[in-house]
Amino acid sequence: MCGIIGVSALHDAARVTYLGLYALQHRGQESAGIVSIDGAGQPHIHRGMGLVGEIFQEPQLKELVGDVAVGHTRYSTAGSSVLANAQPCLANYRGGALSLAHNGNLTNAVELRRELVEQGAIFQSSSDSEVIVHLIARSTQPDAEGQIREALSRIEGAYSLVITIGRTLYAIVDPRGFRPLVVGRLGDGIIIASETCALDLVGATLVRELKPGEFVRVSNGVVKNLTPLAEAPVSRCVFELVYFARPDSTIFGESVDRVRRELGRQLALEHPAPGAQVVFSVPDSSNAMALGFAEQSGLKLEHGLIRNHYVGRTFINPTQALRVAKVKIKFNPVREVIAGRSVVVVDDSLVRGTTSKGLVQMIRAAGAREVHLRLASPPITGPCHYGIDTPTEEELIAATHSREEIREFLGVESLGYLSLEGMLRAAGTKNAFCHACFSGQYPIPVPRSERRGRTPLPLATAPT
Amino acid sequence: MCGIIGVSALHDAARVTYLGLYALQHRGQESAGIVSIDGAGQPHIHRGMGLVGEIFQEPQLKELVGDVAVGHTRYSTAGSSVLANAQPCLANYRGGALSLAHNGNLTNAVELRRELVEQGAIFQSSSDSEVIVHLIARSTQPDAEGQIREALSRIEGAYSLVITIGRTLYAIVDPRGFRPLVVGRLGDGIIIASETCALDLVGATLVRELKPGEFVRVSNGVVKNLTPLAEAPVSRCVFELVYFARPDSTIFGESVDRVRRELGRQLALEHPAPGAQVVFSVPDSSNAMALGFAEQSGLKLEHGLIRNHYVGRTFINPTQALRVAKVKIKFNPVREVIAGRSVVVVDDSLVRGTTSKGLVQMIRAAGAREVHLRLASPPITGPCHYGIDTPTEEELIAATHSREEIREFLGVESLGYLSLEGMLRAAGTKNAFCHACFSGQYPIPVPRSERRGRTPLPLATAPT
Amino acid sequence: MCGIIGVSALHDAARVTYLGLYALQHRGQESAGIVSIDGAGQPHIHRGMGLVGEIFQEPQLKELVGDVAVGHTRYSTAGSSVLANAQPCLANYRGGALSLAHNGNLTNAVELRRELVEQGAIFQSSSDSEVIVHLIARSTQPDAEGQIREALSRIEGAYSLVITIGRTLYAIVDPRGFRPLVVGRLGDGIIIASETCALDLVGATLVRELKPGEFVRVSNGVVKNLTPLAEAPVSRCVFELVYFARPDSTIFGESVDRVRRELGRQLALEHPAPGAQVVFSVPDSSNAMALGFAEQSGLKLEHGLIRNHYVGRTFINPTQALRVAKVKIKFNPVREVIAGRSVVVVDDSLVRGTTSKGLVQMIRAAGAREVHLRLASPPITGPCHYGIDTPTEEELIAATHSREEIREFLGVESLGYLSLEGMLRAAGTKNAFCHACFSGQYPIPVPRSERRGRTPLPLATAPT
Amino acid sequence: MCGIIGVSALHDAARVTYLGLYALQHRGQESAGIVSIDGAGQPHIHRGMGLVGEIFQEPQLKELVGDVAVGHTRYSTAGSSVLANAQPCLANYRGGALSLAHNGNLTNAVELRRELVEQGAIFQSSSDSEVIVHLIARSTQPDAEGQIREALSRIEGAYSLVITIGRTLYAIVDPRGFRPLVVGRLGDGIIIASETCALDLVGATLVRELKPGEFVRVSNGVVKNLTPLAEAPVSRCVFELVYFARPDSTIFGESVDRVRRELGRQLALEHPAPGAQVVFSVPDSSNAMALGFAEQSGLKLEHGLIRNHYVGRTFINPTQALRVAKVKIKFNPVREVIAGRSVVVVDDSLVRGTTSKGLVQMIRAAGAREVHLRLASPPITGPCHYGIDTPTEEELIAATHSREEIREFLGVESLGYLSLEGMLRAAGTKNAFCHACFSGQYPIPVPRSERRGRTPLPLATAPT
Repeated sequence: MCGIIGVSALHDAARVTYLGLYALQHRGQESAGIVSIDGAGQPHIHRGMGLVGEIFQEPQLKELVGDVAVGHTRYSTAGSSVLANAQPCLANYRGGALSLAHNGNLTNAVELRRELVEQGAIFQSSSDSEVIVHLIARSTQPDAEGQIREALSRIEGAYSLVITIGRTLYAIVDPRGFRPLVVGRLGDGIIIASETCALDLVGATLVRELKPGEFVRVSNGVVKNLTPLAEAPVSRCVFELVYFARPDSTIFGESVDRVRRELGRQLALEHPAPGAQVVFSVPDSSNAMALGFAEQSGLKLEHGLIRNHYVGRTFINPTQALRVAKVKIKFNPVREVIAGRSVVVVDDSLVRGTTSKGLVQMIRAAGAREVHLRLASPPITGPCHYGIDTPTEEELIAATHSREEIREFLGVESLGYLSLEGMLRAAGTKNAFCHACFSGQYPIPVPRSERRGRTPLPLATAPT
Repeated sequence: MCGIIGVSALHDAARVTYLGLYALQHRGQESAGIVSIDGAGQPHIHRGMGLVGEIFQEPQLKELVGDVAVGHTRYSTAGSSVLANAQPCLANYRGGALSLAHNGNLTNAVELRRELVEQGAIFQSSSDSEVIVHLIARSTQPDAEGQIREALSRIEGAYSLVITIGRTLYAIVDPRGFRPLVVGRLGDGIIIASETCALDLVGATLVRELKPGEFVRVSNGVVKNLTPLAEAPVSRCVFELVYFARPDSTIFGESVDRVRRELGRQLALEHPAPGAQVVFSVPDSSNAMALGFAEQSGLKLEHGLIRNHYVGRTFINPTQALRVAKVKIKFNPVREVIAGRSVVVVDDSLVRGTTSKGLVQMIRAAGAREVHLRLASPPITGPCHYGIDTPTEEELIAATHSREEIREFLGVESLGYLSLEGMLRAAGTKNAFCHACFSGQYPIPVPRSERRGRTPLPLATAPT
Repeated sequence: MCGIIGVSALHDAARVTYLGLYALQHRGQESAGIVSIDGAGQPHIHRGMGLVGEIFQEPQLKELVGDVAVGHTRYSTAGSSVLANAQPCLANYRGGALSLAHNGNLTNAVELRRELVEQGAIFQSSSDSEVIVHLIARSTQPDAEGQIREALSRIEGAYSLVITIGRTLYAIVDPRGFRPLVVGRLGDGIIIASETCALDLVGATLVRELKPGEFVRVSNGVVKNLTPLAEAPVSRCVFELVYFARPDSTIFGESVDRVRRELGRQLALEHPAPGAQVVFSVPDSSNAMALGFAEQSGLKLEHGLIRNHYVGRTFINPTQALRVAKVKIKFNPVREVIAGRSVVVVDDSLVRGTTSKGLVQMIRAAGAREVHLRLASPPITGPCHYGIDTPTEEELIAATHSREEIREFLGVESLGYLSLEGMLRAAGTKNAFCHACFSGQYPIPVPRSERRGRTPLPLATAPT
Repeated sequence: MCGIIGVSALHDAARVTYLGLYALQHRGQESAGIVSIDGAGQPHIHRGMGLVGEIFQEPQLKELVGDVAVGHTRYSTAGSSVLANAQPCLANYRGGALSLAHNGNLTNAVELRRELVEQGAIFQSSSDSEVIVHLIARSTQPDAEGQIREALSRIEGAYSLVITIGRTLYAIVDPRGFRPLVVGRLGDGIIIASETCALDLVGATLVRELKPGEFVRVSNGVVKNLTPLAEAPVSRCVFELVYFARPDSTIFGESVDRVRRELGRQLALEHPAPGAQVVFSVPDSSNAMALGFAEQSGLKLEHGLIRNHYVGRTFINPTQALRVAKVKIKFNPVREVIAGRSVVVVDDSLVRGTTSKGLVQMIRAAGAREVHLRLASPPITGPCHYGIDTPTEEELIAATHSREEIREFLGVESLGYLSLEGMLRAAGTKNAFCHACFSGQYPIPVPRSERRGRTPLPLATAPT
C-alpha cells in the first residue's frame, strides 16, 4: 500500500508535501520521497528508506524548491524493498522532466515490462510503476495529456496516480476506483492526496473526491476535468475502510470512524458473547470496532491491552533464552482488567493468525478466565492483487484451515468472524466494493504470471 | 523524569536491560544508557541521545557483555540536554568501577556540589546525580555499603537508585518514597525497575515493591535487605498515578489503569456535563479517565481525536505561512464524531494550556457546538522539585490565572478540574502522597538556590 | 578522468576490484562503484560519493558476491557531480543484466541522447556513458557481441570500456586509443584495468596492453579476441604520461616514471637556469621531472616544498581575515632550502595559474632571492574533449595571455615551458599522440553542441 | 605522540586552532579536539575519533565561539584508543573551567593516580593527562599559577602543556625539554604550538621556542614569563628530528630538513654502497635522508617506490587467498628504476622490521639484483617512556636479534645502521639529546609499574 500527494501553485510545495506525507505515513513506512518542480521546470528529488520524519530534514527540504511537488510513501507491494523502488519515479523524456507517484498495483505489469524490454527499454527498479513511465515516454502522442492517456490505455489493475510533466500536475483514478484520491484547496493552491487527513493537517479544505476513471489536470491552482477513462464496473476496496485508511479520514464518501463503529455493531449482532464481562480492542486499529461492539452488546468497554508506541523498526531480539516475542514488545496486558474475567477481544481482521495467537497467550497469562475473539471482517481467503500487501494464499490461515481449527490454534473459547454481508452493510450503500480477498470474486482477472509471490525479473540489490 | 533498571545474575544482562528500557521509554526520551559488568568486574558502557531503539543496535549490545547491568532512560530534570548528562554515571574510584542510575531530583545538590568543588572535585556533567558519585568516592568508610550509606546521609530530595560497585548491585528508595522501584525475578536472576511493565516485558514475575527508605544488595541473584535509611513521612508522587506511569503498571500497590478510571468517575461526579452528547479522550494519556467519565456519567464514549504515532522528535515546522501547530501534527479530529454536537473532552491535567487551546480550536473547527473540558486532576499551581519536569511557576497557567480566565483563554463552554480530595480518593488509601504541585504543600523545603529555573554552574556545551 | 577495472573468474571478484580501484584512486576521487555478478548471473551493486576506502566497508563488500565484477572510480568529466552519475551503470535489458564502466568522453553524446530521447528513452543520469547502455539495449542484433558492436558503431570520441552482459566480460578501446587499458592474469582469472599499478597491487602479471580498436571477450578466465573496431589514426593521450597516470605504471608501452624523468631532462636542455642554486619539485606530481632536470642541469636537487597529505576534501576555510589559501594548507615551504637562494621550481603543467601564483608567493615569503619556474609541458591552450577535466578556454591562462604576461602574473624571474617537440621526444617513438590541448590539433572534430561547458540537459539534483 | 596548540586574543580562536591542528596532523591521527573559551569565560568543546578534517565541520566550528582556545591531536601513548581519552581535557573546578592539552608522557602517573583515587578522585579516562587536571583541582594554592606550579611539582616525565583557566592561557615545557613548543604572533594574538609548521599555516611569525623548564602566561595577547620550573639536565628527543617532526618545521633551533639531509650524508660516510647503481627513499619520511645519501655517495637518486596517499585507515583486507600485505597497498615499486640493478634503499629507522621485509620482497619481485638497506638512525633497542608510541622491547627487532640475523630476516645483501655518534653529529651541537631508545640511557628512571605495556587500571570501554 502507498500514500500519494500532489501539490500545485503553493509556495514551498515540498514542505506542504512533507506535511501531507506525515499524515499519510500509516499507508507505508518502507520508503518515502518527494519531487519538487521549480519555476524553471527543473525537478529536484529526495528519496530514502524509512519514515518521512527520518528521511527529510531541513537541508533536504531546503533543496526541494518550487511550487509544484509530488510525494509518495511506500509499503512494498510489487518489487523488493530497496531504495531503487522508492517513489516518486523521476525521468527525463522528450516531454521534459516527468515524475510519478502511484498507489495501487498493475495486473499486467510483467507482460508489459517484457514487451518494453524487448523493445530496448532499460529498467532501473522492479516496481510496476516504472512501466507506466516507459509507456508515457514511448507514446507517439504530441502532448502530455495524450501521452498519459495512451499509456493508461495499456495498463490494467489498480492505480491512483499523481504525475508532473513540466510544471503541470495530473491526477488519475483507475476506472474501477480501487484506491481513494481527494482534491483539496489551500489558498490559491491545490492539493491532491490519498486521504482527507492529509488535507486536514495542512489546513486545506476538501473540494471533492475523484470518481473512478477521473483524469484531471492542475495548473496554476486551477483543476481542469479531462475526458474520463473508459468506464468499468466500480469496485472500491472495502479493506481501505476496514483497516487501511485513518479513522479521521473520509474516503469513498464515508467517515472511516463511522464505518468501523458500525462494523463493531454488526459484529456484536452476529456474534454476541453473552457470558462475557468486558470487551476490549487490540489498539489502535480496532478501537472504533470495540466501541461499536460494546455499544451494541451492552458489554463494558475497558482497556485490556496497552500499546508501546516507541517500538521502532530496529528492535533487536534478545537471546532466544528470553523468548520475547515481538508481540510482547508491542502490547502489554492490563492485569487489573483481565484477571479472573471472561473477556471479548475485538480485532479488525485475522491474516496469518500468529500475532493473535501471541496476544491470546498474553491475555491468558494475565489471568483471563475465558477469551472470546471477535473479528470485524470475514475470513481472508485470498491475496490482494490490487495494491494491498497481503501474504500468499498458503500463509493465510483462513485459506487453509477450518474455523474450528483456527479457534483451536488460537486457543480461544469462541471465535466470531463478521459475515461478508454484515461487512458490506456497515460499509454503506454509496459504493460498489471489491471484496476479493474475502470472497474470491476478483474484479480483474489476474494472469498466473502476474500473481504475487512469483520471482520478479532479476534486478541488482544495492547493499546501501 | 527517568526510568531506571538494574539486573543481576542474568546471562546477557545488557539485553534484558535494553528490553526493560524499551518498556520504560515513556519515562524519558532524551537519552538512554546501559552499563554492563563482565565476569572480571570490568564495566562496559554505551550511552546516547534519543530513543532506546535508536541508541542500541546489535553492535553496541554485543560489546555490553556481562551478567550484571544497570540502565537509564532520561527526560531532563536537572542539568541541560547534552550527552554528558546521560546516565548511568560511570566512574573509577578506589572501590573499583561504580555505575549509578538515578530517578528523582536532589534538593541540596547545588550546595553539595559547591562544597565538593571547593575540595577539588572535578565535575563532568551538570547532573545532580554526579554529586552522589563523588560523595561515595570520597567516603572514608571501608566497604561499599558504608560508602553508599554515608553518601545518602548527605543528600536530600527524591531518589530511587540502582548502583553497581564491582559486580554487586544495590537499590535504594529515598525515605519519603517519591518514585517507585519494583523487584522482579527471572529464573535465577533479579531485575529491579521503575515500573512493573518492565518486568512484564522480559517475562519476570513481580517479587515486591521497595518500600520508602529501603536499601537492598543484590548479588548472584540473592536480594539481601540492608538496614533501611532513617525514617521520614511517606509522600508518594501522586502524579505518577495521574500521568507518568504506564497504565499497565502496578506501582505504589495500585493498578494505574484502575486509578485512572476512578479519576474519571470522580471527575464525572464532581463535574458532570448534563447536556453533552458525547465524551472523548485526548489519546492516549487520558483514555482510561474518559472511560471512567463515560461509565459514571452515562454519556456515550467515542473517539473524537486520532493521534498520529509517527510524529518523531525531528519534525520540521514548515513556513509560517502554513501556520501548522505541532498539536495539529499530533492530533486530528474526527469530524463525524464532533460536528454539530456538544462534546466533553477529558484530559489528565492542564499545564501551560497551549496544547489544550490548540485542541479546542481544532475541535471547534471540526464543527463542535459546545466544548466542555474536564481535567482529571486539580489545577497545577507550583513546579515539582522532586523529579518531574514541570515548567516554572510563571508558565503554569493555573498559578497565574483564575479558572474563569483559563476557561476564556481555552475558549470552552465549561471547564471542570477534579478536586484535590477527589484525586486522592481515586488514588486509594494505601499511600500517603506528595501533591505539592497541586497544593503547594512541599514535603521537603527547597532552598531558593536549588529551585528549578536557576542557571546551573557553567559547563561546556558539546556541539555533537 | 576515470579509472576502470573488470575481473573474470576470480573468487570474490568484488574484493579484487576494490583493491584495483584503490590503486586507480588517482584517476578519480568524486565517486566510485562496483557491480559484481554472481553464479546465477544476478548483479549486485554499490556506488557512492567519495573515496574508495570510504565507500566500501566490509558490509558492502560482503554483499557484492560473485566471480565477475566491474569497477569504476570517477572524476567528473561530462555530467554533474551527483550520485546518479556514479558508475558502473547497471541496467536490465532483454539480454539480461548489463553493467558498464567507461573511461573517456564521447564527442557525439548530446546528439545521440537527443535522438534516443525522441524515441522514448528515459535517462537516469547526465553521464554520456548511459548513452552507450541505451544503444546496446536498443540494438536489434541477436547476440551481445553484435549489440555492443552496433552501439559502438554509433559513438565517437574516447572510450575505454569494461562491460558485463550476463556473466561475460567485454573490454574495448576506441580506434584512436586515447585511454589505456591493460590485461593481467591472476591464477586462473583475468583482470582488465586502466593502468598496470592496479595489476601490481593485486599481484597479477601483465599479459599485454589492449591496442587501439581492440575488442575482447573474457569468459571463465579465457580472453578471446573479437574482430577489432574500424581502424582510425592512433592518438594516445600524451597527458596521461605527463600528468595523469601513476609513475609506477607502464602504459602505451612506456614506463611513466622514465618518460617523466626524460621530460625533466628535455626541459633542462631547453630552459636551463644557469645562475640558480637549487632545483625542487612541486610534490608529488613533478618529482620525477625535477629529478630529470637536476640530472641534466647539474643543479642540486632538494625538497623545497612539503605536501600535507592529510588534506581532505572537506577542508573548511576559516574567516576571510585569516586569508589562508587552499594552496597553503596543501604545501609548506622549507625555509632552510629556500632562504636567500635563487631557486628553480619544476612543475608538470600550468592550467589556470592560480595555484602556481600562490606557490610562488609562499616561496618568496620563505626568502627566495629568485624564482625560476619550469614547466615540463607546453602551454595548455585548449580544453580536452576526450576525457580529461580541463577548464574551458577562458580559464586557461595560456589561451588568453602571452608568456610575458603569465610570467608577470606569477611573479617569477623566468618562466620556461617545454616545447611540443621536446615533450613528444620524451614521450617516445612507439606511439602517435593526441596533443590537442597543447597544439589545438583535435583528432576528432567536436561539434559546438558537444563542447564542454555547455549546460547539460535538465536533470534532477538529489540533495543526498 | 601528540600535537598541541593554544591560541589567545584572536577572533574565532577555534578556527585558528583547527588550522593549526591540520598542520600538526602528522603528530597524531587517532583523535582530536578543541576547547574554546568565550568572552564570558564559558568553555565550548568538541572532540572526536579520527582526523581533524573529519571531526570538525562547519557546524562544530560555529559552536566553538571565543578568542581563546586549545587544541590537541592524539596518537595514543598512554591510555587506550577511546573517545574518553581524546584531549583537551575539560573540567570545572573551583578556579572555574580548566582545559588542558598534553604532549608527552608522565613517568609517575600510575603512582599519582593510585594516590588520587585513594583520596576519592574519580577518573573519566585512562590518560595520564587527567592526573595533572586532578592535581591542579586539588591544589590548595590561592591562584591559578600557584595551583599549576604545585601540580607540576608532583609530576615527572615529559610534558609540553597548554592550559586554559578562565580566559588565561598557560604554556609549559618540562625541565628536560623532551618535546618542542614554539610561540608565534599573528596580529595582536598569540599562538603556541608543537611545531613551527602550525605557525606557518596560519600566517603567524615565530617569536621564539620555549626553553626547557619555561612557564609562561598569555593573556590578551601578552606573553608573561613566569618563574621557570626547577632545573634539570636538558634532554631533547632526538627522534623528533629523525622521524617525528615535519621536515618544514624548525624545532630545537634546527631545521628538520637540514638535519635529515645531514643524517643521510653521515650514513653514506659510514656505510657507502660502492657497487650500487641507484639510491632511493622509502617515501616520504626518508626523502631528505636519501637525498643526503645520494649527495655524499655520488650515487644516482631515483624514485623507486611510489606511495599511495589515498590509503585510509579503514582499508579492508581481502581474502587471505590474495595475500596482499598492507605494505603493498601503501607502496608500489617502479620496475623501470629497479629491474636488473643493485639498489640502495634509505629508510629513517627500523622498528619491528616487518614493513621493511615486505618492502624488500616487493623490490626483489620488481627485479632488483641486489638490495642494500641503509638506516639513518641506530638500532632501536628499547621503548620510549617519554611520549613516543614505540612497541615493547620484545617486539623491537634490534633488541632481540643480531645485525646479521636482521639482515638475513630482511633478505638484503647488506644492512647499514647509522651510529649513535653519527646521528648526534647530524642533530647538531645546540642541544643535549635524549637517545634512550637507541642507547638505553634513560634520563628519568622509569619504575616497573609505569612501564608501557602494563595493563592500565580498569576503565569502561565505550562501543561507540
